[in-house]
Amino acid sequence: MNPSDIKALTFDVFGTVVDWRTSVTNEGEALGKRLGLEADWAAFADAWRGLYQPSMEQVRSGQREWSILDELHRESLDELIERFELKGMSEQDIDHFNRAWHRLHPWPDVVDGLTRLKKNHILATLSNGNVALMVNLAKFGGLPWDAILGAEPTRHYKPLPGAYLGTAKFLGLEPEQCMMVAAHNDDLRQAQSLGFKTAFVARPTEYGPHQSKDFEADGPWDVITDSFVDLAKQMGT
Amino acid sequence: MNPSDIKALTFDVFGTVVDWRTSVTNEGEALGKRLGLEADWAAFADAWRGLYQPSMEQVRSGQREWSILDELHRESLDELIERFELKGMSEQDIDHFNRAWHRLHPWPDVVDGLTRLKKNHILATLSNGNVALMVNLAKFGGLPWDAILGAEPTRHYKPLPGAYLGTAKFLGLEPEQCMMVAAHNDDLRQAQSLGFKTAFVARPTEYGPHQSKDFEADGPWDVITDSFVDLAKQMGT
Repeated sequence: MNPSDIKALTFDVFGTVVDWRTSVTNEGEALGKRLGLEADWAAFADAWRGLYQPSMEQVRSGQREWSILDELHRESLDELIERFELKGMSEQDIDHFNRAWHRLHPWPDVVDGLTRLKKNHILATLSNGNVALMVNLAKFGGLPWDAILGAEPTRHYKPLPGAYLGTAKFLGLEPEQCMMVAAHNDDLRQAQSLGFKTAFVARPTEYGPHQSKDFEADGPWDVITDSFVDLAKQMGT
Repeated sequence: MNPSDIKALTFDVFGTVVDWRTSVTNEGEALGKRLGLEADWAAFADAWRGLYQPSMEQVRSGQREWSILDELHRESLDELIERFELKGMSEQDIDHFNRAWHRLHPWPDVVDGLTRLKKNHILATLSNGNVALMVNLAKFGGLPWDAILGAEPTRHYKPLPGAYLGTAKFLGLEPEQCMMVAAHNDDLRQAQSLGFKTAFVARPTEYGPHQSKDFEADGPWDVITDSFVDLAKQMGT
């Protein structure tokens, strides 16, 4: 893999760019304190994320019409408010908490690494998050994307091929000119099968004590690292 | 209009952000010099832009399937190469010249103004240019967009309502929370009719000696100015 053949880096976001678990847990704790609600907020964050794939699967399988992630997150949240028996949240509280996903903190190496990578490459999101969520996340965390692509503009949730191929097409590039960056081996496996180059960035604390996989690369990825700064170095910037 | 009620500024690009006429003319002159081709390159640029609306109208009217602007530009270019009797251009020459639209220079006030505006607002393109064109233009000119939206992601060419309303929807905003920025009164009239706030930025030399309209604001726009730096000032940054 010659770095100068790669025109765009396309990024998985949840877990790869941002630490959703710590951020959502902290938002829950702040909310609980404000409203006097008792809960294991890390367990709440894990449960919320646990409903992520099943909710998207309804869309992927065609069981339900296209729905953006904000809507899926909200339905999952409503379900968990019942399950965790959280009483007395107003509509405004619930909406604000749902948008915790718009206020996730990047891992410490991210902004420096992206800033370096941006000099020589197009940086695009290839996430299942919707455009507004991604734009707000970028404003919140200072993420210097060149384009917000992925699920909503292509109307395909990963790992459906259309999410990857549609993103390359929006950029006017062949898959081979794009490198998928992710902390998840499955995401890279799908991207590689569609022609993308691949970079694995280890995020071994993404799931906290419940992390069960993705501690290390388990495929023939073009770049293997544990930080965006080192990724930038390996890409020649 | 209270600037803090505006969450996003959505920008027309050709003519408003970038000086397409000078840039395309200069690219033509460089090409002519390299290949020994004689032509009035300013007239060529004007003729190319002259085919812009008719080519999009075929898509808007449903006469042809969705086609991105790069494709429409290329068909217009092929037609003009015949009309101007330019001989001996290779496929590579033609493709490179077609991508002159990816290398348009911003007006001098643009990068400073956008950089200021970006502090407090989401900045998104709402152009008929396709995503790859807009991304490359941003890399070329240093335009700090938060999102590339408009025609291709919404699959509607302006002035169809779907281009404006779809852009606001991608941002998760009501039209009233968006301000359309354009050098063209017609663009603002349509945006305003759909609920957008409006900012007119005069670009009286866009069409060179052939400019026939848009010398000044002719509607009740929320902001009227002649530079992005002053627009930033009027928006409180």
